[in-house]
Amino acid sequence: MKRIGFVLKVKQELIEEYKAHHRNVWPEMLEALSAAGWHNYSLFLREDGLLFGYFETPVSLEQAVAEMEKTEVNARWQAMMSPYFELPPGARPDQMFVELECVFHLD
Amino acid sequence: MKRIGFVLKVKQELIEEYKAHHRNVWPEMLEALSAAGWHNYSLFLREDGLLFGYFETPVSLEQAVAEMEKTEVNARWQAMMSPYFELPPGARPDQMFVELECVFHLD
Repeated sequence: MKRIGFVLKVKQELIEEYKAHHRNVWPEMLEALSAAGWHNYSLFLREDGLLFGYFETPVSLEQAVAEMEKTEVNARWQAMMSPYFELPPGARPDQMFVELECVFHLD
Repeated sequence: MKRIGFVLKVKQELIEEYKAHHRNVWPEMLEALSAAGWHNYSLFLREDGLLFGYFETPVSLEQAVAEMEKTEVNARWQAMMSPYFELPPGARPDQMFVELECVFHLD
């Protein structure tokens, strides 16, 4: 199982809306994530909108993202989420993850 | 089990040294962390030195830090690590964790 860490930046003025969406993620999106190998997945937010994602997967970040890209629900979710992030115009959040290097682990 | 996310900032010019220390954390430090309730603990580093920590604990970040403060090995480790971080002079890294809010979780 590989441990993945990544960052994105949520627009500070949209943090509350972003959080509300994530209290009510569509059940079909959750099912798609599980089926695509996203396990023990958490999102953490700093007050300025820095978003840190952590999950565990048998594959890589690229492969886990590619598995999600095969699903119709992911396209809808990413389109809805796109305006919440500081990204180049038209970019999809799941294609702009900045992966971090895991430099320490203790079970 | 509570999931904790926190950030710190490693000085960019000391990243390689920081990483080397974390490939060889003292066994007694690892044992102290486990005994103090730091489980599934990973550290992730961005190229600019942003450091993200993730761990799972039955207590809180404050309590997990307080448990480590009771150990002698933690004082030695924090003193050694202190120069690697962008912190106020004299501050101990484990007292400057910025805790992030967990806004989403999927098992």
